[in-house]
Amino acid sequence: MVDRVYNFSPGPATLPVEVLVQAAKDVVNFKETGIGLIEMSHRSKEFMAVTDNTESLLRELMDIPDNYKVLFLQGGASSQFYMIPMNLLGDGKKATYLNTGTWSKKAIKEAKLFGTVDVAYSSEEQTFNRVPGQSEYTVAPDSEYLYFVSNNTIYGTQFPDFPETEKVLISDMSSDILSRKIDVSRFGLIFAGAQKNMGPAGVTVVIIREDLLDRTPENTPTMLTYKTHADKGSMFNTPPCFAIYVVGEVLKWLKKLGGVEAIEAINREKAGILYDYIDSTEYYRGHAEKESRSMMNISFNLPTPELEAQFIAEATEIGLNGLKGHRSIGGCRASIYNAFPRDGVVKLVAFMKEFEGRNKV
Amino acid sequence: MVDRVYNFSPGPATLPVEVLVQAAKDVVNFKETGIGLIEMSHRSKEFMAVTDNTESLLRELMDIPDNYKVLFLQGGASSQFYMIPMNLLGDGKKATYLNTGTWSKKAIKEAKLFGTVDVAYSSEEQTFNRVPGQSEYTVAPDSEYLYFVSNNTIYGTQFPDFPETEKVLISDMSSDILSRKIDVSRFGLIFAGAQKNMGPAGVTVVIIREDLLDRTPENTPTMLTYKTHADKGSMFNTPPCFAIYVVGEVLKWLKKLGGVEAIEAINREKAGILYDYIDSTEYYRGHAEKESRSMMNISFNLPTPELEAQFIAEATEIGLNGLKGHRSIGGCRASIYNAFPRDGVVKLVAFMKEFEGRNKV
Repeated sequence: MVDRVYNFSPGPATLPVEVLVQAAKDVVNFKETGIGLIEMSHRSKEFMAVTDNTESLLRELMDIPDNYKVLFLQGGASSQFYMIPMNLLGDGKKATYLNTGTWSKKAIKEAKLFGTVDVAYSSEEQTFNRVPGQSEYTVAPDSEYLYFVSNNTIYGTQFPDFPETEKVLISDMSSDILSRKIDVSRFGLIFAGAQKNMGPAGVTVVIIREDLLDRTPENTPTMLTYKTHADKGSMFNTPPCFAIYVVGEVLKWLKKLGGVEAIEAINREKAGILYDYIDSTEYYRGHAEKESRSMMNISFNLPTPELEAQFIAEATEIGLNGLKGHRSIGGCRASIYNAFPRDGVVKLVAFMKEFEGRNKV
Repeated sequence: MVDRVYNFSPGPATLPVEVLVQAAKDVVNFKETGIGLIEMSHRSKEFMAVTDNTESLLRELMDIPDNYKVLFLQGGASSQFYMIPMNLLGDGKKATYLNTGTWSKKAIKEAKLFGTVDVAYSSEEQTFNRVPGQSEYTVAPDSEYLYFVSNNTIYGTQFPDFPETEKVLISDMSSDILSRKIDVSRFGLIFAGAQKNMGPAGVTVVIIREDLLDRTPENTPTMLTYKTHADKGSMFNTPPCFAIYVVGEVLKWLKKLGGVEAIEAINREKAGILYDYIDSTEYYRGHAEKESRSMMNISFNLPTPELEAQFIAEATEIGLNGLKGHRSIGGCRASIYNAFPRDGVVKLVAFMKEFEGRNKV
């Protein structure tokens, strides 16, 4: 159908081909209405159905309880870094953060503008190669919430289990939402940019427990108040229609595949193929400690930076794209989100073996 | 090619068919890279070229001087309502606003959170059926800026000439950007949601004079500081890639058509056809005063609300879609932005005549 390469990009990231093909059709002529999806009024019954359907599917696939609102917002996950403390902190109030990578660090910086931040754990001195276990940090008793990043895209680490706390638990799940089964009822707020596991860039999903909607200080701008969007079903202003639509199509694909449990098994298998090979050789070294390894992003090094550059260049030549690590740690990274095909992982491992054989040190 | 209806929606609004067809192709496989546009890393050289190209075309078509930055932001025009005063006002500082419709009113509400607002003119008591001439308002001498909405989508009014002021001039051009020639150098800041004249929902263009980038108060969240995005070429975080791409394609189409001067002539002709007919009959009454009429949105009434409902229903039947007026004023509205075809206007006028003949009062 389409001559595809294997796209290991960390986000925007590979999407199911059938979603792309359907989107292409709908962009020009949505369901034979004679109007393209991207030129259709967001208040038309056709588009309202798109949004409703996307929300319903997300609720079904994640088993989101009724006392949670689902919001489709703009501005990327980065906008949640300030919206969360803007809505839930305030002068003299405190929040606890676990610092496990670039994105938690950025979130901490913004939170400090709105209240007191207690960084209860940081793996920064170990180049963020691990996430903490429950015994490695204490949540301040006067904290409004505990904030953590579920999966650290850049460093390839992931919380195998979520923090246990009586506080409001908040998680940035941008890079692993819908990749494994979670119990939403344990969280106060979950957010995720769409462009890794859910769709294209341009929409951020926020799942928020209803009682948190009433904590926003007065004089917060209307558009930055969660309640504004919750009350209007994400239609207070024109939403990012196309991105919401694609998320809906990705969720349909995921449902057909068997839902989150099915994809979790696939994800474990895909990551296992890669980690098993890395563990079998000294040539490639994983960045993350074993207990903190991510199923989504596998960051690894070769013996020298020169070999890494050669590896990435040769991989690109044979259709294995986007393997360059983030500029902050260098090396290589394979991002293998939900829609990344198993065959691509197998092909990567075959290439890694072959490359090692040809380039002994 | 595609069985199209005439889509008079106020936004998201009709786009050139050739843009839709090209977008459909690129969504699946961007320039034969084997990666779809919406799954491509925003830091890939291919996508960086898309953003650069979109910015260059906008600079060329609007003749934007070098001391202005062009930003592609998220959150809709509604997010500019607070970002402008958040960056450019401050306690004890004042700004002057012209209140000519729903969107200026919303902007005024947000500005009040950040400073003193002087509403120098309002047509609210006349259901916003006009915009002021230069002699009808005074800008407070201690104002930081003068803010106005160039075209009022809901009421169908448009400033025929822009305010003359020595203050920083700020305009919401969401519904008429690129529809007529303007002198950007007269403005401090121009912003526009894309989904009327430029592309799909999901991206907002901000054109800002460089000296205004240094006025943001300390402790403003990073993502809400214009300078953050200006310094990083709108790539501080993942941008709304697809929307930026489509804007670029629309700009290519506009350039091929002859640019802003050419489209302005076409727009004047299209609006003229409709207004000439409205002026020739008592049956249809335009909402806007003649001197304030918009070339983009033509709001009008029929003799009774019942006839309006019948008119809209019958128009929809024959492929004239989206003619219902905004819920705040009712009646009918024909939005005929740049990409709306002249033939659709002719067909609408023919239907209006025919409907009038059949439904005398």
